[in-house]
Amino acid sequence: MKLATLKNGARDGRLVVVSKDLTRATDAASVAPTLQAALDDWEHMAPRLQLLAEQVELGSVPTFRFHEHECESPLPRAYQWADGSAYINHVELVRKARGAEVPESFYDDPLMYQGGSDAFLGPRDAIPLGDVAWGCDMEGEVAVITDDVPMGVSEADAASHIKLVMLCNDVSLRGLIPGELAKGFGFFQSKPPSAFTPVAVTPDELGEAWKDNVIHLPLHVDYNGQPFGRAEAGVDATFSLARLVAHAAKTRPLTAGTVIGSGTVSNKDADGGAGKPVAEGGLGYSCIAEIRMIETIADGAPKTPFMKPGDTVRMEMLDKAGHSIFGAIEQTVEAVS
Amino acid sequence: MKLATLKNGARDGRLVVVSKDLTRATDAASVAPTLQAALDDWEHMAPRLQLLAEQVELGSVPTFRFHEHECESPLPRAYQWADGSAYINHVELVRKARGAEVPESFYDDPLMYQGGSDAFLGPRDAIPLGDVAWGCDMEGEVAVITDDVPMGVSEADAASHIKLVMLCNDVSLRGLIPGELAKGFGFFQSKPPSAFTPVAVTPDELGEAWKDNVIHLPLHVDYNGQPFGRAEAGVDATFSLARLVAHAAKTRPLTAGTVIGSGTVSNKDADGGAGKPVAEGGLGYSCIAEIRMIETIADGAPKTPFMKPGDTVRMEMLDKAGHSIFGAIEQTVEAVS
Repeated sequence: MKLATLKNGARDGRLVVVSKDLTRATDAASVAPTLQAALDDWEHMAPRLQLLAEQVELGSVPTFRFHEHECESPLPRAYQWADGSAYINHVELVRKARGAEVPESFYDDPLMYQGGSDAFLGPRDAIPLGDVAWGCDMEGEVAVITDDVPMGVSEADAASHIKLVMLCNDVSLRGLIPGELAKGFGFFQSKPPSAFTPVAVTPDELGEAWKDNVIHLPLHVDYNGQPFGRAEAGVDATFSLARLVAHAAKTRPLTAGTVIGSGTVSNKDADGGAGKPVAEGGLGYSCIAEIRMIETIADGAPKTPFMKPGDTVRMEMLDKAGHSIFGAIEQTVEAVS
Repeated sequence: MKLATLKNGARDGRLVVVSKDLTRATDAASVAPTLQAALDDWEHMAPRLQLLAEQVELGSVPTFRFHEHECESPLPRAYQWADGSAYINHVELVRKARGAEVPESFYDDPLMYQGGSDAFLGPRDAIPLGDVAWGCDMEGEVAVITDDVPMGVSEADAASHIKLVMLCNDVSLRGLIPGELAKGFGFFQSKPPSAFTPVAVTPDELGEAWKDNVIHLPLHVDYNGQPFGRAEAGVDATFSLARLVAHAAKTRPLTAGTVIGSGTVSNKDADGGAGKPVAEGGLGYSCIAEIRMIETIADGAPKTPFMKPGDTVRMEMLDKAGHSIFGAIEQTVEAVS
């Protein structure tokens, strides 16, 4: 089934069940008023929401036109957002640009940071930016929402706790990252609120594209209206999303509604080298930092600037038939004082 | 006023207003069912809760016996937990023990990490520990809860967004910290759920002890039934809690119910040296890591082990008359497989 949260002036919005083709929706209030409420009792709520989803397809419940621009992120605020780095190519590129090695341990011990989850942006909300010097970047990712996960869960068991899948634009302030990481406590000011696709879907909606807890489809990232990234989310994923859930739960349980991210989707080129831009026939990039690294490796300095007010990003994933699975994140950077 | 959340089998518990002497309470459901619900509309809810608090003192509403052991943390789960390090003495000690300098910037740019907030421990809940080798430690801190804080708030304005004050036991797994910090993304597995005092109070309840957005009272930390720390929270605080709130909000707004921590309360000795143990007439420590650092500096190696199953910690703060302000955190480490 496909779920979305419509803006209604309340902090958690209003849960709706969306048709598979994203054209129509029905109110889910008879089951749960909000997605968090559904996740709090998922075992009982999911079958009832599933029934509603079937009725939407059959046309046996009243529906209304679904507009992606009326959506909040599926969870407008969440109790947890933890972002991993499944695509080590991204990490390799970042490190290569500054001449650093990737420690061997990174290939079997996931990187993960605790992100802010109190105020996600809606999928069509502006990205507020206080200062262009902060180096605003987008990062295209896959993200999952879990139910309650017990401490110490195995990777195999973690898979069964992945209840919903969506895409994420993990907004990053690259200009603040070096100073913040040098302090040793990880990201804080450099990771302002992220946005998620209008729709979150159960893994079964992905069909064969959901295999081994990874999505095997390209992530479409457009920047200022031009194709920027078409990286294959099913390729070069060193860690599955189940593995990242298990990593997060090693020393503590995770509460229902926990959002776990894959990190920036990133591929090597077919020849094993750093990826080429889409315009040069490559798969491109899911963030600006990567093309800047490619430029740095090639020419000694980056030439693509980070985002400034007015710049737009679009992220979407299409099924084999070319239909949007999650709807699109479409955001414009906006100056705030 | 003083607020607490009683365990009732629901994820967010049940909000009650507690008498100033912590002996009696009344249900707050007529105003808000949970503390988060109250914070979501604090401007309207606070005066009504305040009225209830006055009625509790007057005996003009029905009350029941208040038991601290029936409490959840005031927010059993929160949308954000960000922990600063106001007491640089703690940072100086940690660094001194390993021969590292404290960067000059640490004295005017607060350290802060994003913590997990999805599943706080109750103030009398056991601390679950999977492996003694993880090096379980307690950390005694002051914490505040904010309402909605706008992005870019000044320190002066941040003060008005501090709505409630409490104490925190920020549980840390010291054995996992070096490896995790070496990865560069900050704490994750090394910071399992924290616990907070049974009662959160509005700053006015602290009277003159709340000055310049710092509490000017000693933090009582007992370890295995013995006095372990009596550090003055009003001394050696390089940053106020308002400053930490402003730091957190530099690049993003903070949603109501955000919890901001002071970091481990830590004092220098009167002569400016590293603090002495309580048994030797000093103010002691609010975490085990500090006494281990003192031992390392003195003898080349630590001798106090980290916590093992059965070890107990108690944290409390008394007003000038000797009455408990927030109630006590009392936790026992418990092995989990």
